[in-house]
Amino acid sequence: MISYTISQIAGILGGTTEGNSGEKITAIAKIEEGFPGSITFLANPKYESFLYETEASAVIISKNFVPKAPVKAALIRVENPYQAFTFLLQKVQELLQKKTGIEEPSFISPTAKTGKDVYIGAFCYIGHFAVIEDGVKLYPGTYVGDGVTIGKNSILYANVSVYMQCKIGESCIIHSGAVIGSDGFGHAPQADGSYLKIPQMGNVVIGNQVEVGANTTIDRATIGSTVIQDGVKLDNLIQVAHNVVIGKNTVIAAQTGISGSTKIGEKGMIGGQVGIVGHIEIANGVKIGAQSGISKTIQEENSAWRGSPAQVYRQQLKSEAIFRQLETLMKKVTALEKALSEKNGKTEV
Amino acid sequence: MISYTISQIAGILGGTTEGNSGEKITAIAKIEEGFPGSITFLANPKYESFLYETEASAVIISKNFVPKAPVKAALIRVENPYQAFTFLLQKVQELLQKKTGIEEPSFISPTAKTGKDVYIGAFCYIGHFAVIEDGVKLYPGTYVGDGVTIGKNSILYANVSVYMQCKIGESCIIHSGAVIGSDGFGHAPQADGSYLKIPQMGNVVIGNQVEVGANTTIDRATIGSTVIQDGVKLDNLIQVAHNVVIGKNTVIAAQTGISGSTKIGEKGMIGGQVGIVGHIEIANGVKIGAQSGISKTIQEENSAWRGSPAQVYRQQLKSEAIFRQLETLMKKVTALEKALSEKNGKTEV
Amino acid sequence: MISYTISQIAGILGGTTEGNSGEKITAIAKIEEGFPGSITFLANPKYESFLYETEASAVIISKNFVPKAPVKAALIRVENPYQAFTFLLQKVQELLQKKTGIEEPSFISPTAKTGKDVYIGAFCYIGHFAVIEDGVKLYPGTYVGDGVTIGKNSILYANVSVYMQCKIGESCIIHSGAVIGSDGFGHAPQADGSYLKIPQMGNVVIGNQVEVGANTTIDRATIGSTVIQDGVKLDNLIQVAHNVVIGKNTVIAAQTGISGSTKIGEKGMIGGQVGIVGHIEIANGVKIGAQSGISKTIQEENSAWRGSPAQVYRQQLKSEAIFRQLETLMKKVTALEKALSEKNGKTEV
Repeated sequence: MISYTISQIAGILGGTTEGNSGEKITAIAKIEEGFPGSITFLANPKYESFLYETEASAVIISKNFVPKAPVKAALIRVENPYQAFTFLLQKVQELLQKKTGIEEPSFISPTAKTGKDVYIGAFCYIGHFAVIEDGVKLYPGTYVGDGVTIGKNSILYANVSVYMQCKIGESCIIHSGAVIGSDGFGHAPQADGSYLKIPQMGNVVIGNQVEVGANTTIDRATIGSTVIQDGVKLDNLIQVAHNVVIGKNTVIAAQTGISGSTKIGEKGMIGGQVGIVGHIEIANGVKIGAQSGISKTIQEENSAWRGSPAQVYRQQLKSEAIFRQLETLMKKVTALEKALSEKNGKTEV
Repeated sequence: MISYTISQIAGILGGTTEGNSGEKITAIAKIEEGFPGSITFLANPKYESFLYETEASAVIISKNFVPKAPVKAALIRVENPYQAFTFLLQKVQELLQKKTGIEEPSFISPTAKTGKDVYIGAFCYIGHFAVIEDGVKLYPGTYVGDGVTIGKNSILYANVSVYMQCKIGESCIIHSGAVIGSDGFGHAPQADGSYLKIPQMGNVVIGNQVEVGANTTIDRATIGSTVIQDGVKLDNLIQVAHNVVIGKNTVIAAQTGISGSTKIGEKGMIGGQVGIVGHIEIANGVKIGAQSGISKTIQEENSAWRGSPAQVYRQQLKSEAIFRQLETLMKKVTALEKALSEKNGKTEV
Repeated sequence: MISYTISQIAGILGGTTEGNSGEKITAIAKIEEGFPGSITFLANPKYESFLYETEASAVIISKNFVPKAPVKAALIRVENPYQAFTFLLQKVQELLQKKTGIEEPSFISPTAKTGKDVYIGAFCYIGHFAVIEDGVKLYPGTYVGDGVTIGKNSILYANVSVYMQCKIGESCIIHSGAVIGSDGFGHAPQADGSYLKIPQMGNVVIGNQVEVGANTTIDRATIGSTVIQDGVKLDNLIQVAHNVVIGKNTVIAAQTGISGSTKIGEKGMIGGQVGIVGHIEIANGVKIGAQSGISKTIQEENSAWRGSPAQVYRQQLKSEAIFRQLETLMKKVTALEKALSEKNGKTEV
């Protein structure tokens, strides 16, 4: 559906061409999976051998690259092939997603405000007093509750749910099935063993350039706000409990859970399936290995942690190494006991 | 959008006022984040210093509290400030969620029954022979399959899916993205390495006052019912497999998974990211620490467990403490071996 | 709603009857929970005692079974009672799910193609150039993006989201809330600490006879395809990252996560809550215990692994056994140290 000649693409990328630059490109491929009509790139020298074999019609390559064998594909030479290729991907994605307008049926409250150049897919619901700023895209089946704000150029994919009064910043991407603003898990134990629900009256406030993965859940605060600061990237199936704060540019991998009222610093890197208890603080720049359990505040900036309960990274690696040798260790101790008791036997004789 | 004077709120709470009780309240805040026009509370003495600094217009406070410094905010004096504040939150929440009626477009089978004072949001689907009792709220995009019953005053938020023939009790809250009644994971291995699906013909039966978190999944039984008893509270992203039974008033934190046919007792407390194998029983009142793995029946009521595979809580803490010292332990054993071999050397000399 | 006599059911199953075979059957039950009007089965001798107590109207039983006491229920005698019962379940499920036609309102792009005998529930969205093959069932609220193909006889339950250009094979079952084709988690770190999104331009390709559990997420490839081969069975809440390949007939339990570009072999069995790092390979037939963490390529076919980080199954069990005795081990070492130092003391005296 998209079709440019190789020389047109070279023009877009500010590159120069070698070979048959009149051919039309209709697809993007990895160099090892290239096929006629596709374009690919070579940045990592590890993949150089594929250059001489690829069936792709065009390869984006470094200005200075000198081939060691004949190349069948046309070449587009640029300063930085990886960057050029990423730029190309972005342009193609923008073309594929050039959706605007309001599809029917959709439900838009008469008290809601919608900006310019928005896309509102069929079966979207926009509640009372909600604000949908310019350039926002809401894919089909997305629910935007009463009083919600969605900032400029943000994209919410299909079947996202945003509860009342939450705020999403500009240029965010929220993937399908994500739930923003569900009730925090707060229940007060009663004398008869049952629980009384503590109303969760706060909201969720998400900054700019935040990405939220598919089926990730972010609970609203009891009072105040659960806060996801600018530039945070959350993978799929993550749980963020009520009143949590996640600092700027922190990235978190899939299936991690963060318990209530915990504050995570900026520029953190948290692996997948990590669990973090409630009411603690994690300093800026902290790295946490996959499947770790964090049960205490971490004060040291840029420190690295691993294990459940977690230790400093290197210490945990040592413990793990000996854990694998525990059978040997036990045998050594049994041998020592035996040796010593024989010795005692001997000396007593 | 909501606006009462301080003295009106005092009236609702059965309290007495001090200070400027004519001011209008339009928001709820934490004491440390109070701002003009907001109401807050002081229950925990730890937060007393904020009382003298808060910008909130009103503070709910104990009848008997004696301030140690001047307070700018108006005071509402009550017996139990925390309880009064929770009551206030509930009232505000009820006001904000006073939704009734049937929004269009929605799909309601002519064979379905809907009670009085229900809210059925746009894009809701109600299948054949489904029963929606009085006072139920179905938020937009929720799917209620054939033959499903939803009990009085239950709330299903946006984009919930309830498969055919499941039963949800009264006064339940089901959060967005939750899936009730998907097929249990049952597949019989065949000679050629493939699997034959075992039909999952049972259902899910949920009692009264149950809360189910966002994107939590509860599978239907193979035959019979997967059962969630009265008062159970499930957090987000929990997996409940087919034929599981969860006893009354048990609470389970996010991302925990319970495998098929396991029976969990009443009044249990299960942490986040716990895994429980299938076909076992957990006694009443058992506490399980976060990230634990439970692989055997637990018969001792009110016992506490931790670790993967789990041990009794205290024993596991001891093992964990020594795990962190394994490097030291290994060095000690090496030193002992050396000492003993030198000794042997000596004695042999 | 379904009603056959016992002798009609015996006819369907190719069995012979004993007792009152004219009674009508309207439900299916477990033998221990049978009630008048229900049919059940006895295959496992462990449950034989229930045969003499059950209130069920009919029991499917082996041709050769000899009762040790009087049985009130009618009997249907067949070669293999479990197989016959499963067959019966399938037939009932097919009857209950005999949905066809297009419900309104739904959104079907004029450029989409829909085959014969399809069911398209209300509030379904079918994007441009999408292809819905013969016999496909799309339950209400399901989103099918631009250019997606859904193969013959596949079922997508309510509120599934399939992003653009993904391909789903024949006879697949995708449960509610599953997300197919969300962006892979790819972000390039920038000098200022922020991240630049790497466009995810590939897709997801799912083979035939694949089952995907509720709220499971499968990310699209950066370039190329994330591939789920024929016969794979995925439970609920699983995360499959970009460019992963899962080989034929592999089964994976709930809440497991597989990181980017990892290739999993055929006929694997992976437990619940397992984490697998990116860019590794798992050989055919490998078994991985629940909650394991796999951080390295596994080359040995049919090997079994357990623990985090995982060891070979038996070795891990030994390490775990000693982990539970670490307190004792530490005491032994302390005792040895004391004994040796006393001994040294003695000998030096």
